[in-house]
Amino acid sequence: MNGADPVPEPTDDIMCATYRALCRHGYAELTMQDIADEWSKSKPALHYHYDTKRGLLLAFLDHLYDAYTDRVAAPDEGTPRARLDALIDAALDPPRADAHRELRTALFEVKAQAPYDEAFRERLGRFDDYLDTEIRRVVAEGVETGTFRADIDPSTTATLLLTLVNGAHARRVALGTDGGVRAAIDDFVDDHLGEAEP
Amino acid sequence: MNGADPVPEPTDDIMCATYRALCRHGYAELTMQDIADEWSKSKPALHYHYDTKRGLLLAFLDHLYDAYTDRVAAPDEGTPRARLDALIDAALDPPRADAHRELRTALFEVKAQAPYDEAFRERLGRFDDYLDTEIRRVVAEGVETGTFRADIDPSTTATLLLTLVNGAHARRVALGTDGGVRAAIDDFVDDHLGEAEP
Repeated sequence: MNGADPVPEPTDDIMCATYRALCRHGYAELTMQDIADEWSKSKPALHYHYDTKRGLLLAFLDHLYDAYTDRVAAPDEGTPRARLDALIDAALDPPRADAHRELRTALFEVKAQAPYDEAFRERLGRFDDYLDTEIRRVVAEGVETGTFRADIDPSTTATLLLTLVNGAHARRVALGTDGGVRAAIDDFVDDHLGEAEP
Repeated sequence: MNGADPVPEPTDDIMCATYRALCRHGYAELTMQDIADEWSKSKPALHYHYDTKRGLLLAFLDHLYDAYTDRVAAPDEGTPRARLDALIDAALDPPRADAHRELRTALFEVKAQAPYDEAFRERLGRFDDYLDTEIRRVVAEGVETGTFRADIDPSTTATLLLTLVNGAHARRVALGTDGGVRAAIDDFVDDHLGEAEP
């Protein structure tokens, strides 16, 4: 830093503006002008940082991914079951769930565009890969320490839980409800992993 | 009929044209003109039957629902496990899966619009409700006849399987792969219901 304050990066401001613009307008209707308006700067100023809406959205997915890995990481402390529960809760129920609902709907629109865009697919895949790895790690530790059933396959368990999280998100967006899936997942984990928290 | 041939309903033709137009253009970009083109008739002729793209799409969802209930109904014959497997296969892997991929992507776009439209939400919810009822029925029969574990809750099992099907569809659209979820579901059913098919 050479003793000088670092020049503030405009990127964080733009990411916040993108977040607000996505919540307000959704993805399909979103324009660079909408984002510039939320940023309280001009559209040319925004284009100085990002050439296209697509480029900005890809950067926004990277930004969300960083926040996701901070939030969804399994805690270091606690029993494997408590850590697995915390992981599922974090993946299913983000903080500020109300504000998040609008973002989730917008991200669902982004997902619908993914079949047409390899870079979007790659970015979206990283969220699932991260959750998959975290679940496998905690389940494997539970099996190794004898807390979970010895015949459990951590990889299969991770695939099931990851798909359940994806399905819950999809049903919330499309139907407005996930049909009480958190309690059902709890029953599944009790039954499948063979350990109930006292 | 009074001995006369029934006048052919144009509706089926329009539904086929809508299917092709959705596969070709996706939902967001779809226009009444695109559907009229696939129908090989004029846009005013299409508007004679459906005032708006929204009205036509709602009718198309009803049309898909009828096809879905024909296809996904649990078979009457076989063990509860075989019938449950057939049900899951039908819900996960429609016939003509390649052609279906484009439709599924378009329907994913429709789902992304559902938060803004109660009628879409209601139509989409009927697919899940139907599958939920069918799964619960087969699992309950398996429990009653002693084929499945006595302590299984058919409603919880249905919630889990239904959410897994939704998650698999969402991952296929967004990532191009469901991560081998069919085999994982098989393991889950073996383990959870306590019966493996010989």
